[in-house]
Amino acid sequence: MSSPPLDAALGPDLVTVGFHPAGGVVRVPAGTAVSQAAAAAGVELVTPCGGQGRCKRCRVVVRGPGLTPPDDVERDALGEDALARGVRLACRARLSGNAEVEVPASSTTAAAQILERSVRREVPVAPNVRRVPLQIATPSLEDQRSDLARLLAALPAHERPSHIAVQAMAALPSALRTSDYRVRAVLVGDHLTAVEPDGREAGRCCGVAVDIGTTTVVVYLLDLETGEQLAAASAHNTQAVHGADVVSRVDYAGSTPRGLQELREVVLGVVNRLLEEACVEAGVEAQQVHECTVVGNTCMMHLFLGLSPKYIAQTPYIPVSVSSYEALACEVGVGISPAGSVYCLPCIAGWVGADTTGVLTAVALDSDPRPRLALDIGTNGEVMLWTGTELLVCSTAAGPAFEGAQIEHGMRAARGAIERIALLDGDLEVATIGEAPAVGICGSGLLDAIAVLLDAAVLDPSGRLVPPDQEGAVAGGMRTRLNGEGNQRHVVLVPAEDAGREDGPVWVSQRDVRQVQLAKGAIRAGVETLLAEGGLQAEDLEEIILAGAFGSYISKRSAVRAGLIPQLPLERIRSVGNAAGAGAVLALLSLHERAEATRLAARARHVELASRPDFQMRFMETMLFPGE
Amino acid sequence: MSSPPLDAALGPDLVTVGFHPAGGVVRVPAGTAVSQAAAAAGVELVTPCGGQGRCKRCRVVVRGPGLTPPDDVERDALGEDALARGVRLACRARLSGNAEVEVPASSTTAAAQILERSVRREVPVAPNVRRVPLQIATPSLEDQRSDLARLLAALPAHERPSHIAVQAMAALPSALRTSDYRVRAVLVGDHLTAVEPDGREAGRCCGVAVDIGTTTVVVYLLDLETGEQLAAASAHNTQAVHGADVVSRVDYAGSTPRGLQELREVVLGVVNRLLEEACVEAGVEAQQVHECTVVGNTCMMHLFLGLSPKYIAQTPYIPVSVSSYEALACEVGVGISPAGSVYCLPCIAGWVGADTTGVLTAVALDSDPRPRLALDIGTNGEVMLWTGTELLVCSTAAGPAFEGAQIEHGMRAARGAIERIALLDGDLEVATIGEAPAVGICGSGLLDAIAVLLDAAVLDPSGRLVPPDQEGAVAGGMRTRLNGEGNQRHVVLVPAEDAGREDGPVWVSQRDVRQVQLAKGAIRAGVETLLAEGGLQAEDLEEIILAGAFGSYISKRSAVRAGLIPQLPLERIRSVGNAAGAGAVLALLSLHERAEATRLAARARHVELASRPDFQMRFMETMLFPGE
Repeated sequence: MSSPPLDAALGPDLVTVGFHPAGGVVRVPAGTAVSQAAAAAGVELVTPCGGQGRCKRCRVVVRGPGLTPPDDVERDALGEDALARGVRLACRARLSGNAEVEVPASSTTAAAQILERSVRREVPVAPNVRRVPLQIATPSLEDQRSDLARLLAALPAHERPSHIAVQAMAALPSALRTSDYRVRAVLVGDHLTAVEPDGREAGRCCGVAVDIGTTTVVVYLLDLETGEQLAAASAHNTQAVHGADVVSRVDYAGSTPRGLQELREVVLGVVNRLLEEACVEAGVEAQQVHECTVVGNTCMMHLFLGLSPKYIAQTPYIPVSVSSYEALACEVGVGISPAGSVYCLPCIAGWVGADTTGVLTAVALDSDPRPRLALDIGTNGEVMLWTGTELLVCSTAAGPAFEGAQIEHGMRAARGAIERIALLDGDLEVATIGEAPAVGICGSGLLDAIAVLLDAAVLDPSGRLVPPDQEGAVAGGMRTRLNGEGNQRHVVLVPAEDAGREDGPVWVSQRDVRQVQLAKGAIRAGVETLLAEGGLQAEDLEEIILAGAFGSYISKRSAVRAGLIPQLPLERIRSVGNAAGAGAVLALLSLHERAEATRLAARARHVELASRPDFQMRFMETMLFPGE
Repeated sequence: MSSPPLDAALGPDLVTVGFHPAGGVVRVPAGTAVSQAAAAAGVELVTPCGGQGRCKRCRVVVRGPGLTPPDDVERDALGEDALARGVRLACRARLSGNAEVEVPASSTTAAAQILERSVRREVPVAPNVRRVPLQIATPSLEDQRSDLARLLAALPAHERPSHIAVQAMAALPSALRTSDYRVRAVLVGDHLTAVEPDGREAGRCCGVAVDIGTTTVVVYLLDLETGEQLAAASAHNTQAVHGADVVSRVDYAGSTPRGLQELREVVLGVVNRLLEEACVEAGVEAQQVHECTVVGNTCMMHLFLGLSPKYIAQTPYIPVSVSSYEALACEVGVGISPAGSVYCLPCIAGWVGADTTGVLTAVALDSDPRPRLALDIGTNGEVMLWTGTELLVCSTAAGPAFEGAQIEHGMRAARGAIERIALLDGDLEVATIGEAPAVGICGSGLLDAIAVLLDAAVLDPSGRLVPPDQEGAVAGGMRTRLNGEGNQRHVVLVPAEDAGREDGPVWVSQRDVRQVQLAKGAIRAGVETLLAEGGLQAEDLEEIILAGAFGSYISKRSAVRAGLIPQLPLERIRSVGNAAGAGAVLALLSLHERAEATRLAARARHVELASRPDFQMRFMETMLFPGE
């Protein structure tokens, strides 16, 4: 059968767009925004403002005549010089004809470092999923019981299921008759979900733990009989095209009738794709994955289940549910065995989610009589304090500064990001991810920058970059790096000739410092408020635990120097990696740990910061940097 | 956007076929069988043999050159004369070019009479589905409980759900805030499946009962608060294109790797289409249908759930399951509220299904101390005997003769079918459905024909049409109707000039009589075997209950005259319509009746006929017709 050429069939309204250097050519209807075409081509642009033209982070360079003229938003954002060089905002510019689009590394989220590792406690493997080997009675004209009746008769009384999945029944006749009536029954809780022929060739019995971050989704595939991790996979939460932060997502969910459903489908799509990747890597079929545990902040958990997060964001801040939740995989839409179970760990409050419950479980925060503090710094910053008698939690609106957003040359921890900065002979020593030419700065680099600029006295405790008339006070090499006036003042980290940017050097600006002050001040004020609430001083703390990607990559010294965390001997500060994800893994491997998670979520007392005057007072102090 | 003409896009390999008088024009790939093209055009042809060219029932007349030449099967089946007139078998002939196809009424199943009515007992409405009105506490900064927590707190303790559907949670925030926190919680068993704003405009709360027959599927839509039947809809079970009887379906399910899945999808498709029709008729949304009860024979129940019926048909005849079965609608694939429940009534044995359980429940067979007999005659014939102390059931392989299959001019009860025959002045008086010219004979007409031919002594008790040399014994008008020799002998019911057939008169042949003898003999032998097993005589029976479409349309007198049922005063023979479906309705309306169904299925003792020598003996006797 012959087909007419695609072009003719699709009509004259399509345009062709190529993206470089990422590759990818797509044909899209004329009028499509460059950012949407990029998404269609698999190029993930940074769009923290959700495509409103505010953040100016999605800059691209366009060759070819095929764009609509810039509107006022774009003219204001970019200026005529940049526009003349072909620079455009991908979220504003629309395609009117064929075009070639150059995507600078600083505008893409591709290939970022995502934390899949975590410090994990060893626990006895005692999961909700069990395989029970059974020898079944053989049928005859004298014993005409159904296949199911004879299977149930063979099951131990305490394993009698309350529900039998239709898939398990469907598998029965062949499983029984190909294995000489020796089978294994798979039970998930008290549901009989699968029946497999017994024998040496029997495959694995698996589960998957999912951590849905605002920015990143991670899945861990585990063998539920050995406890072995078979694979992990991670990707950006592509909901981010509708806004980098939680509040933008809440807005988007309510902005259109389809918004909520769309965000749900996006995150399910990411989870299912990662699950598939992990299964391929481990050589496991999706049918062999019988349970899925999930953590995420309260809003992400809502979006994952298709629940409106609208009222979390409005006074009096009411979530639809914070309890643990269990449902069939086919009800939720997760691509494991359809009769398998999806278990969502409990949240604690509207802004303290199941991810915090995961951290509390992973580090067993209240397992020691001595006071301990844990911080999980992602797009929001959650603070957890065990006082020795009470478990306090709060959430601080740190914002995505430490993830590179709202920072002039900020970027996520991807190739070319400055991740480490040291002071050497009075000048800066800069290291980038992948040792590539610097294209921007990520969270750990930013915190190092603050620390070294404080050490070099280029930055004063109030957060001001020193003015030109005080430059005499600044050591040799640093002097040439300081440029600009007032709010335009900035410190060049990598000069234009060494940088990998299109538009000049990589710097930290006065405005960037202010963003860091807001972020770290909020977190530190949360810490101080909880300490006060618990009647403790910082020096009472046995340990400070840093969870999450940022907490794992930052320099402890810089964190203390910048005042993000209280001053404690560095050996009492511990990074534990993706502890939220580790909590999901523990709940998958052990019903005891799952019960612990519920106990911890119920025990945790949520301290609402927004309404407390003492928090505001502390925030004004903690925005400042410590002296020497 | 313009599109190229469809023809060009689809290539040159398609042919156009029109069907008359049913209408419908389709384009299909060359090489497609006429029967498949008919199915695509929505024309339901009779294909009891499953398209193997054996039954010769799918005769069509083709105009135009667009067919492949007949193969040997077709030549043998039709003969050169018919072929010359353009007659072809739709299951064998394949399209090679454009064609116009004439479909005789006797070859189509369209517009058959399907029994949706039934005699229904009045029961108190106490279903598994309840709507509970609730006044929920209003949230405030002092009461930040989640929406779900406050709903659960308002529910009476005995209604605390074990499972909460994600759809119920998703509906919560808006339901609460649009109704001033007055809502109705819908509980299906102990599952919270929906939440609706309370108020006068609240819609109905519905359920659907489904009867999956081998030939016909019927659905009943009910209001679960008033018990009112809102709509009923029925259609052919289009699995029939893979064989009219159960055994052909079992074969097809095992014949290809996709066979079972295909049969499941077909029946789900029919059920969901009828559900949609019923909802439209009643002005109800599918979301308002919270539960579905299902009856059918054991094989149909297996196919509905995607369970292989293979081992039901092989010694020692083991079904996958005969228990009642409950699952979420989304697990089974029924298009009611996805969190709603599907409840399959229990089967009794491999060949005695949930339809029999439905009949037992609908007629409450063991509710009276006096012995009663019930017959459900469909494609199979199930016999139920309440002896006063014991409940006995058996299944007889009646075959589809009474549904018009395997009868030369047999057809389903559709327009033009002879449905009644009386003896008037020594000759036949014939009535057809829709008073249309006769095109064939359906089950009730066939049984009448047997009765009047016995009365007229044209048929002797051994089942032989009287030979020509005895024609003198036959009354006037009848004499001219007897034609042919030996097995070719037949009685013309409607002569060619009055009939609506292409190929001549409508008759009953010697072979047809033999088919009826096999069918009625099997059923009656089942009756006699159960009576003997229960130590009863026919005259001990208080009542004979006839269930099913055939049982409702037949003449009681003819049934007795032909020996299908024992001789009992006609007022003690009662037709109850689709009692299997009525059982499904009762189980939907009342948890008490649902429990009764389970009790009856457990109480029923299955008497396996195949292995009993006394059944074979009785069968030889019951094949004969009674004397005067």
